[in-house]
Amino acid sequence: MAALVIRTPLHFRDVATLALCCALPFTAPGRSEAQAAGPAPIRGFPQDALAERARLESVIRNTPDTARLREYLRVMSAEPHHAGSPMSRTVAEYALARFREWGLDARLDSNEALMPYPVMRRVEMIAPTTYVAQLQEPAIPEDHDSGDRNQLPTFNAYSADGDVTADLVYVNYGTPDDYDELARLGIEVRGKIVIARYGRSWRGIKPKVAAEHGAVGCIIYSDPRDDGYFGADVYPVGPMRPEQGVQRGSVMDMPTYPGDPLTPGWGARPGGRRLDRSEAATLMRIPVLPLSYGDALPLLRALRGPVVPNDDWKGALPITYHVGPGPARVRVALQFDWQVRPLYDVVVRIPGATYPDQWVIHGNHHDAWVNGAEDPLSGAVALMETARSFATLLRTGWRPQRTIILALWDGEEWGLLGSTEWAETNADALRTNAVAYFNSDTNARGRLSASGSHTLETFVREVARDTQDPATPVSTLQAIADFNVRRARTAADSARAREPFRIDALGSGSDYTVFIDHLAVASLSLGHGGATEAGVYHSIYDSFDFYTRFFDPDFAYGRAEAGVMGTAILRMADAPVLPFSFSDAARTYRRYVGEIDSLAHARLPTDTLDLAAVRAAVDSLAAAGARFDSALASATGHGGAWLTRNARALGSIDRDIYLSERDLANERGLPRRPWFQHAIYAPGYYTGYGVKTMPGIREAVEQRNQAEAMEQAAIVATAIQRMAARASAAARQLMGLR
Amino acid sequence: MAALVIRTPLHFRDVATLALCCALPFTAPGRSEAQAAGPAPIRGFPQDALAERARLESVIRNTPDTARLREYLRVMSAEPHHAGSPMSRTVAEYALARFREWGLDARLDSNEALMPYPVMRRVEMIAPTTYVAQLQEPAIPEDHDSGDRNQLPTFNAYSADGDVTADLVYVNYGTPDDYDELARLGIEVRGKIVIARYGRSWRGIKPKVAAEHGAVGCIIYSDPRDDGYFGADVYPVGPMRPEQGVQRGSVMDMPTYPGDPLTPGWGARPGGRRLDRSEAATLMRIPVLPLSYGDALPLLRALRGPVVPNDDWKGALPITYHVGPGPARVRVALQFDWQVRPLYDVVVRIPGATYPDQWVIHGNHHDAWVNGAEDPLSGAVALMETARSFATLLRTGWRPQRTIILALWDGEEWGLLGSTEWAETNADALRTNAVAYFNSDTNARGRLSASGSHTLETFVREVARDTQDPATPVSTLQAIADFNVRRARTAADSARAREPFRIDALGSGSDYTVFIDHLAVASLSLGHGGATEAGVYHSIYDSFDFYTRFFDPDFAYGRAEAGVMGTAILRMADAPVLPFSFSDAARTYRRYVGEIDSLAHARLPTDTLDLAAVRAAVDSLAAAGARFDSALASATGHGGAWLTRNARALGSIDRDIYLSERDLANERGLPRRPWFQHAIYAPGYYTGYGVKTMPGIREAVEQRNQAEAMEQAAIVATAIQRMAARASAAARQLMGLR
Repeated sequence: MAALVIRTPLHFRDVATLALCCALPFTAPGRSEAQAAGPAPIRGFPQDALAERARLESVIRNTPDTARLREYLRVMSAEPHHAGSPMSRTVAEYALARFREWGLDARLDSNEALMPYPVMRRVEMIAPTTYVAQLQEPAIPEDHDSGDRNQLPTFNAYSADGDVTADLVYVNYGTPDDYDELARLGIEVRGKIVIARYGRSWRGIKPKVAAEHGAVGCIIYSDPRDDGYFGADVYPVGPMRPEQGVQRGSVMDMPTYPGDPLTPGWGARPGGRRLDRSEAATLMRIPVLPLSYGDALPLLRALRGPVVPNDDWKGALPITYHVGPGPARVRVALQFDWQVRPLYDVVVRIPGATYPDQWVIHGNHHDAWVNGAEDPLSGAVALMETARSFATLLRTGWRPQRTIILALWDGEEWGLLGSTEWAETNADALRTNAVAYFNSDTNARGRLSASGSHTLETFVREVARDTQDPATPVSTLQAIADFNVRRARTAADSARAREPFRIDALGSGSDYTVFIDHLAVASLSLGHGGATEAGVYHSIYDSFDFYTRFFDPDFAYGRAEAGVMGTAILRMADAPVLPFSFSDAARTYRRYVGEIDSLAHARLPTDTLDLAAVRAAVDSLAAAGARFDSALASATGHGGAWLTRNARALGSIDRDIYLSERDLANERGLPRRPWFQHAIYAPGYYTGYGVKTMPGIREAVEQRNQAEAMEQAAIVATAIQRMAARASAAARQLMGLR
Repeated sequence: MAALVIRTPLHFRDVATLALCCALPFTAPGRSEAQAAGPAPIRGFPQDALAERARLESVIRNTPDTARLREYLRVMSAEPHHAGSPMSRTVAEYALARFREWGLDARLDSNEALMPYPVMRRVEMIAPTTYVAQLQEPAIPEDHDSGDRNQLPTFNAYSADGDVTADLVYVNYGTPDDYDELARLGIEVRGKIVIARYGRSWRGIKPKVAAEHGAVGCIIYSDPRDDGYFGADVYPVGPMRPEQGVQRGSVMDMPTYPGDPLTPGWGARPGGRRLDRSEAATLMRIPVLPLSYGDALPLLRALRGPVVPNDDWKGALPITYHVGPGPARVRVALQFDWQVRPLYDVVVRIPGATYPDQWVIHGNHHDAWVNGAEDPLSGAVALMETARSFATLLRTGWRPQRTIILALWDGEEWGLLGSTEWAETNADALRTNAVAYFNSDTNARGRLSASGSHTLETFVREVARDTQDPATPVSTLQAIADFNVRRARTAADSARAREPFRIDALGSGSDYTVFIDHLAVASLSLGHGGATEAGVYHSIYDSFDFYTRFFDPDFAYGRAEAGVMGTAILRMADAPVLPFSFSDAARTYRRYVGEIDSLAHARLPTDTLDLAAVRAAVDSLAAAGARFDSALASATGHGGAWLTRNARALGSIDRDIYLSERDLANERGLPRRPWFQHAIYAPGYYTGYGVKTMPGIREAVEQRNQAEAMEQAAIVATAIQRMAARASAAARQLMGLR
């Protein structure tokens, strides 16, 4: 479809522009026959509802206002507001007041979690020369927030306390592969302090793998090759990380479980049950601290031992990169206060008129490491305008069919604390009632990125087809293709960019994790970005001044985000038949089986991993999906009145449709990490952010564990068969309606 | 063959080691049947001569002595000895004295050439801040020659005089492609000073292309990405270029003609005819000066304008690379003394006993930019030991069949002055008498590299087969394959490394140029290297201390070089039938035609370049080559006595064999550069060092000049047909001997 999009004739662009002005439902460029025939069909809705849908969607997409987005962002980013601090509550209460001012039912929902603040941080080199790390990001005159009081110091959350002195070893990105390369050089890190650079893996993987190899401490620094001067000028001249800029961040072992380390699997209510700190499996076992490249340079310059094994290990500092160990000898001394602190989630509820027990949920966190203008406020303020759009629609008399829940989560930066504890607290209700969870986080100029459950792929494509790119007179869908083609470096990239729209699977790194991975609620992550390369992530420079200069100066992308998300919520809340597609899911699962099969041929003795049962389950799902697609077309073909007449029965069918994702849950969870229950999606145990699909099988194959791979294949096959059976039942019931 | 070599069984390695000890002729690993049957055949010699050849070759390969190599290098690199200076004569006279001491007929052969020394050099930035470049390489305690007096300052020879001030533009490597990229950014260099980095093209191309684009000055600097700290530690800790290290070098327009700019095409005898300097086509038209990265950094850091277009433009300095122009505003002021100075070639002649008018020539330059331990003395001292080996052999009563000429050239660094003027002076005799020219230059640890005329490919392979790698108990031939396999980064590299041994075509950059490109004498370049990445090229740090620490500490590779070259000379001087192969040449020429055909399809309108005549000529050559191979096998099969009986007739046939290379000369030369007369090989007009094969056709196609491409195709076809006819005649005459 994207290839067609590229060749959109000019007159068609004019039509699209016109559509924008008239707030008609936007049709996909390239669907010229449909264009002539009227608005494009929307999955789950009857044709005779489209005019009304267009009216409702025009309110949702035209209400968000750039001046308001700017004002919320200015106020909420004015002071540092890390979780557990008074300012985090102030920010939550600001949003709460706005929601209430718009007439919405909103409240603060409070949990607690272990959030140790640093009380002592020292990194120094004691040989062959001496250097004491600054550990301080300087204020700059060009950024009026950079000198704010109450900034959380540079640190990695959930590092161990400790005072270690040892020779230093450079481990590149600190991934398992990097340690394999070190082993080939004969370098061990046992008893050493490692220095890894940020990037490639999620940061928490670096100290985890270092500790597994016996390291006693870990430094993580931002090499200028990755987000510093190598890419573009540094702040304030350009958007890249300055010499003393530091990336804060959590090193909790989130691939084991996220949320409060002391309450794995249950909600961290004030006064509730907690583990002793010594029992918490997700606390890092060694001291870890992040450094700027200004502070890292003297240490790296002092390393000797072998030169790094290849260019992939070389950053952009003006030195020859050596591995060590030593003679650089380094002390890392850290102490934290290990306090349990309050979390303030802000939760808005718009009750459903027909199906109040079917919940469509959208969340974005509000806590930041410092001022957090981009991360997370750019997404949070869009959520607020989405909320105001629904408030506007409510004032016209409209009521959603299903309940809409909008949430601003606290404590995401520490380890998805607010969302995880809220969802664990409400787990039973969510397992029954949650239709879908839509997440956003940062938002900036660029194209819409979409990841999530593959049952929602067609749904997202239609939302992208019917919304407008803020910068060009084309649909969001075409803008995605255009962006990808423009960014393509190779012919293969370019060909890929022109393929039909696909969504990626979700790994981890934001608040969707508990919903999809723990509760098996169909989830989506939607956000704009990618046009601005920047290096202020988790630093004091992620500020209002920076955001409005580099990320989204006129808030056009904030408005677009609110419109895209509002459209998705509105459709999911109102659709007479829920717009899931089992055919989409089956097609993607089939690809995963193929990938794992290839991997097994490379890693396991030939013919030892039998995936026939998984393939058979995917075949069943594909067949059920086809039946469901026919049944859905037939049902919506009967028109709005017929659907309304069957509303009660449809409510029950819809429940089957969304509970199909719950069928993918395996209650025993993944091997060695029972919290992760989804059979198809999980963050990799050694990637952290990066997804492993069909993770039970895939990671067993990667670890060359044949027995476990076979066991997991049976689990995955059973899960997909459950989903197929439920999809079949839904199709049968839909066809049975009269 | 290389693939077989890799799998050489262990017992075979033992045999090879034994062969080394006994000084038997070394046979190729993998030829196990021949091993069992006796020594491998040597092209051009009868089987019954092989025992005697083994005896002679053992003297040639066992005489070179590492202690002597070290001593010559120590003495000759003790002081700066750039061409035109008194020390250059002193070095020449030292070698002359050695040759005479060994009983050889040696003399100084003096020409003259324009060699302007710098009298004023200034580079300064006058805005937005000020900086005056140091233009000085500091002495370091770890290198006892680095503080020598009489070092030639850092400069580019044949730069224009001038005093220009302009905004600066960064042009990456300064190749034509880089200017295309700048044009896409809308950046012009007209009226600007460009700063290019060393590498990728020959340095003289950079100011030439800059001037063509209207630049008024050119700075060339050594980026640490290319030979500085990015690769390894800098000197004296490691072998890479230190902060203030500078690459001197000529920017004469050598792709137009090398040698004295004032005597194009004729010998620069003292008192002879000279152009006025204003008439010389090879002098650079704008001021050019090289900088260290220490001096370049402040200038590059001050550039603004667009960030460079992609990562290929980024060096390893700790800055964001910008293109400019400005605001860095720079002054480059240079003055030279424009003197004609003397050149001292040292020429040794060993008269041939049977064919005194057939000359086998070997040369290596002796002049350096400063102390020049590696460049050129590492090769020069090996030539001296080759000479002493022949002197040793002469004392046993042996006389070569053909005349051997050994030469140490002067003034190579400036533009191949000594070799070019000597060869132009003796052009008529060389055209008639020169059988082959063998060149060497730098020599260091690594594998043997071989490039040259493809008629000599089999000849070189046999030399590599029968000589020993100095570091491992395998032949030079196997060591080449092993090295290439070890260095292979990709599966394709690795596969290529295992293909049969091939030699590359010669571009330019050393003293073979006048022989192959101007006189069409079959030529070879042979030298060891590649194991040490270094950054002291053309700097004061190319010293005895450096060489003996990093390049060839025990002179094992110097000894190997003398043995390989001595073996090649001995075989070429003594072979009853010259060991040329027209079949080898035809195979490679056929590949060139295929490449040009593909290029023409990409660059020219379809079906406009008809290469049928060239293909037909290559077919003729292949047929003649096959007949010649049979005739040669038949002739040598008759045995030594028969060959001796036919010596007079063979002398005439041999003359045809070696004059076949002269058939490839086109007396009109290449378009716009008549000095370059070889139809198959020339340095690229826009690459400088890099070869363009079938250059007349290829460069016309590259420039999309269809008419010229057709004209040049006819010339190439005629040249190859001439060679084929002569090869046929030689075959016929050989077969006709009784």
